Amino acid sequence: MSHQASTAQVDAVVEKIGELGLTPELSKGEDRSIIGVIGGNAYAYREAFAHLPGIQEIVQITKPYKLASREWKTRDTVIRIGDVSIGGDEVVMMAGPCSVEGVEMLMETARHVAAQGAKILRGGAFKPRTSPYSFQGLGEEGLKMLARAREETGLKVITEVVTPGDVELVSRYADILQIGTRNMQNYTLLQEAGRSGHPVMLKRGMSSTIEEWLLAAEYLLSQGNRNVMLCERGIRTFEPATRFTLDINAVPLVRELSHLPVIVDPSQGTGRWSLVSPLALASVAAGANGLIVEVHPHPDDALSDGAQSLDFPTFDRLMADLQRLTGVLSAQPAN
Amino acid sequence: MSHQASTAQVDAVVEKIGELGLTPELSKGEDRSIIGVIGGNAYAYREAFAHLPGIQEIVQITKPYKLASREWKTRDTVIRIGDVSIGGDEVVMMAGPCSVEGVEMLMETARHVAAQGAKILRGGAFKPRTSPYSFQGLGEEGLKMLARAREETGLKVITEVVTPGDVELVSRYADILQIGTRNMQNYTLLQEAGRSGHPVMLKRGMSSTIEEWLLAAEYLLSQGNRNVMLCERGIRTFEPATRFTLDINAVPLVRELSHLPVIVDPSQGTGRWSLVSPLALASVAAGANGLIVEVHPHPDDALSDGAQSLDFPTFDRLMADLQRLTGVLSAQPAN
Amino acid sequence: MSHQASTAQVDAVVEKIGELGLTPELSKGEDRSIIGVIGGNAYAYREAFAHLPGIQEIVQITKPYKLASREWKTRDTVIRIGDVSIGGDEVVMMAGPCSVEGVEMLMETARHVAAQGAKILRGGAFKPRTSPYSFQGLGEEGLKMLARAREETGLKVITEVVTPGDVELVSRYADILQIGTRNMQNYTLLQEAGRSGHPVMLKRGMSSTIEEWLLAAEYLLSQGNRNVMLCERGIRTFEPATRFTLDINAVPLVRELSHLPVIVDPSQGTGRWSLVSPLALASVAAGANGLIVEVHPHPDDALSDGAQSLDFPTFDRLMADLQRLTGVLSAQPAN
Amino acid sequence: MSHQASTAQVDAVVEKIGELGLTPELSKGEDRSIIGVIGGNAYAYREAFAHLPGIQEIVQITKPYKLASREWKTRDTVIRIGDVSIGGDEVVMMAGPCSVEGVEMLMETARHVAAQGAKILRGGAFKPRTSPYSFQGLGEEGLKMLARAREETGLKVITEVVTPGDVELVSRYADILQIGTRNMQNYTLLQEAGRSGHPVMLKRGMSSTIEEWLLAAEYLLSQGNRNVMLCERGIRTFEPATRFTLDINAVPLVRELSHLPVIVDPSQGTGRWSLVSPLALASVAAGANGLIVEVHPHPDDALSDGAQSLDFPTFDRLMADLQRLTGVLSAQPAN
Repeated sequence: MSHQASTAQVDAVVEKIGELGLTPELSKGEDRSIIGVIGGNAYAYREAFAHLPGIQEIVQITKPYKLASREWKTRDTVIRIGDVSIGGDEVVMMAGPCSVEGVEMLMETARHVAAQGAKILRGGAFKPRTSPYSFQGLGEEGLKMLARAREETGLKVITEVVTPGDVELVSRYADILQIGTRNMQNYTLLQEAGRSGHPVMLKRGMSSTIEEWLLAAEYLLSQGNRNVMLCERGIRTFEPATRFTLDINAVPLVRELSHLPVIVDPSQGTGRWSLVSPLALASVAAGANGLIVEVHPHPDDALSDGAQSLDFPTFDRLMADLQRLTGVLSAQPAN
Repeated sequence: MSHQASTAQVDAVVEKIGELGLTPELSKGEDRSIIGVIGGNAYAYREAFAHLPGIQEIVQITKPYKLASREWKTRDTVIRIGDVSIGGDEVVMMAGPCSVEGVEMLMETARHVAAQGAKILRGGAFKPRTSPYSFQGLGEEGLKMLARAREETGLKVITEVVTPGDVELVSRYADILQIGTRNMQNYTLLQEAGRSGHPVMLKRGMSSTIEEWLLAAEYLLSQGNRNVMLCERGIRTFEPATRFTLDINAVPLVRELSHLPVIVDPSQGTGRWSLVSPLALASVAAGANGLIVEVHPHPDDALSDGAQSLDFPTFDRLMADLQRLTGVLSAQPAN
Repeated sequence: MSHQASTAQVDAVVEKIGELGLTPELSKGEDRSIIGVIGGNAYAYREAFAHLPGIQEIVQITKPYKLASREWKTRDTVIRIGDVSIGGDEVVMMAGPCSVEGVEMLMETARHVAAQGAKILRGGAFKPRTSPYSFQGLGEEGLKMLARAREETGLKVITEVVTPGDVELVSRYADILQIGTRNMQNYTLLQEAGRSGHPVMLKRGMSSTIEEWLLAAEYLLSQGNRNVMLCERGIRTFEPATRFTLDINAVPLVRELSHLPVIVDPSQGTGRWSLVSPLALASVAAGANGLIVEVHPHPDDALSDGAQSLDFPTFDRLMADLQRLTGVLSAQPAN
Repeated sequence: MSHQASTAQVDAVVEKIGELGLTPELSKGEDRSIIGVIGGNAYAYREAFAHLPGIQEIVQITKPYKLASREWKTRDTVIRIGDVSIGGDEVVMMAGPCSVEGVEMLMETARHVAAQGAKILRGGAFKPRTSPYSFQGLGEEGLKMLARAREETGLKVITEVVTPGDVELVSRYADILQIGTRNMQNYTLLQEAGRSGHPVMLKRGMSSTIEEWLLAAEYLLSQGNRNVMLCERGIRTFEPATRFTLDINAVPLVRELSHLPVIVDPSQGTGRWSLVSPLALASVAAGANGLIVEVHPHPDDALSDGAQSLDFPTFDRLMADLQRLTGVLSAQPAN
């Protein structure tokens, strides 16, 4: 309450809390009173108080998400997809082209990254593009190519789904559904992906807070789907020199707040291929459970995101550096 | 090109431009060369050059949107819905509750705002909420209430559509489809709304640049739908004292860049009811074609956004202030 | 406290509060306890608790500034400089070139803006420039030109001071000291300017919160200087299309929180001359007490900020529009 | 030029370029012309063109900084202070309390961090604090304590200087002058620190772009001082869960753009002690030349920044982790 609040104003607030079926706890101080409000989901009622006189500020104490929180589930979630585990001791590499552009380039990339130790193949078949005049992806044709690459290489497949009507279709081909940054708050899509039961990787919205991100995960989890992993992919800031600012603070922080695995995308998060490897190593040093990286046999000819794709020799050096790094991080910092 | 670029590197870039079917224009300067690239959609090929040596920077000169630009259409777009015109001389007021909560509160609000001069009734039936545990709207039941309010008051109706599968349903009841800030880059939804032919109000993504916003409008326009209006509703910044930062710079700037009408939402853009009227007046002074404002008979009891809703007496004062303001802005600043 | 906090942990926190000479107020709730901490400047001790186990979050309830707050002084501060009042009923125009470039252009501008109703002449003699290779201002020579323009036109003079050692010098020539955006947290400079007793206009740091801005004002006020006005000049956001994003939300909000006058700088806040007039009108409609605008006889030849300077005919139209606007805002929205 | 620009408009621009003593290079394209402007510091004249009709956009091609750039100096700058080298093969640890609070706590901390392998002692004697009511540092008394700690432990000393008048004083006691984030654009201070010849660590402004940061370094370098190191300390973003967002993208990027050493401050950059070690490791994995970390014998009793200070056992684990990490990064990613 404001320090000028009258007794009548304090009483009015206490009464309103009672009316809403919540419990007020009044604490009178030297120059102002504080009123605690206790009861399930109390913060959702804060607007009922916005126009009452004498209130200085309404502050939320409990976290608004539940199933995603470490308080609710103490132990790390480990997602198993065949023989691949995400969220356990191993750092998992997901690699492949930004878009599936054709069967040959995809097979060439898949074979190469598999040989270097990647476990999961990435590649977009449905691409949400800022301009309607840009390449929008091959659609189901691209999904089929991904499935064929899985058959040949044994890699698992992750690919993006952009609209609720496609969840069933994409689930038929992919091992992990990716929800992209522009769809993090596409709640109908989240609910549909949650209901599918399929593993889901939820990318952080490019201007979403960590709390909003965990609330979006809550949409997936509350449909009964426990196979949810999070992906930090860079946030929008004032800095124009990189495409986004990779928020590596978020990696150990989310691992404190939540039991869900955290993947990092340094390709999107920097937008410049020369920064991808340093940031990949940094992410793992900070406690990431995995990486998702764009790799292209000929980045100059890529139909999308060539500027941030690694060519094969650079990817190979990154895999070697990662192996040495994970060797010394056995006593991992985030645990 | 970098000032250290060799002649061979310059030649390689010129050759690549030719291979792509574009026209190179080489300009050799005192200490570096600049190569212009000319041809339809040339910027889409920029990634083909990202790995070529000797290039310092690739800069886009032409705007990436077309149908939304003033260059393409010089005269203001005026959208006519029955006897209401948006984008013409009049400043149009859209008002109503954040969510449709029930028929009585809706009718009471509709009658009140109509009597004060509002032309369009707002009210959410489908609500995209950050938390899965918040009130999600009444759905089709809410749409029916809006239609009933239109029948009684003559107000036109604007309401949000959140997923492609609902476009047909919402179009049956609403005069204007609203695309919300979280869906500005939900491209499947944009295409579906574009195809519907229905007037659409496209809210700016809370962290979208003006260019991305106009490109999202391009998705609607390129489906042949010309009845598109834009809505500035606040962007996300570092400032915690207000829910968002209303970007009033965007109002006259978008009116320079585009022929589409610009509406402003000071309720979302501030998040505090006491700031709504000053910002509404500011928006109109800056050249807005209309306002969309949350009004509630009893803001303290609102199920969503009560803190930013105007009560009836405050709304009435705003309407009176606006009338005096628009009276003196006949020679409007943005024109 | 966390909902898993033990009684011993709660007791430890209560004891620590007592040790620090503060008063604890324990409120035990359904599933967690809240402990209020009461006493002068209690929030400054929050770090004493950062490592105690069982604490979930420490939240500040009272505002950290005092002399700048409306709670401390209810009535608007009005600053009188000769016959000019800032913070009263009149909207004050401050106008002039970005930099003082020479005596002729300054006199020409001063005469023109005075004839149109401006009350205060702006012009930089000391310029903080991002690059060491840019024009840095004429220094004392420029101050003398400003004083001469005052003598001839009767305008008061505002100009920037950039370092504590220059406060005495600049005070000799200027009626108002300007603290620029890059120096908002240059505390030695603030203290020196506070001690001078001279009226001060404190520009908001380009990425400072409103709270930090009012705390910076507190540095001036706590030196006994009551003649402090605030200037919103645009904040840094992700939007590249304008130089800054003018935060007009801040205008009515600061007027709620503080008794100090609020000036707006639409030239810096937009960076594009075509947006200056619409934003000037918007600022006044939102409740600003004054404007500071860059005007140049020949913007194309300006040594700094030509792109955002108004030429004379545009300035004249703005003055006419403002006069009509202030005529109808007698019942001003912010009051 | 705009695609609607007339020949006369193109000619006017070409003529203006000539008048300014620069060289125009006209390139006529299919639907528009591009005019290159060549000559020293041409971009500084861009405002001379802002009001000429027919220009669509003015774009800078060359970088505005010079002495700080890799183009100007290809090899890494290595700064030698006695037997400590910054910018060479070794990762240098700077550690100590946020503020110098007293001689005992300082000596205790200095002895501890020296024994663990730190090379440089940090500690603030002059503290720029957001509130005038917060602890402002011990001043010269604090400097003397730092010098005494150096004498006893052999550590070099880094401490902040906040105003030009103190540069001489602080240089007498410190081995490295620190320019803090709030003073990155305090140009008088930069010039004075540049002139001192003393090694300087320039912290990035919390909302400064990388280009502005390198331009601020240019102020130091252009005074003839070559011993300049840069410090990334977190930028301000919309994310409220951490105090700042540590921009690790900046580490490898600045090392590409500049030859100056890059230090990272994970204490300021996160604001939470539990995140400091993961982010310290991440920074080094990304190519940082050193770290600056807050360490306090009893963080709960710190007078400033206790929440982000490491206690001794946590610091010791970090040093051990770092040693193993740097062991495997011999083939460092940024090179």
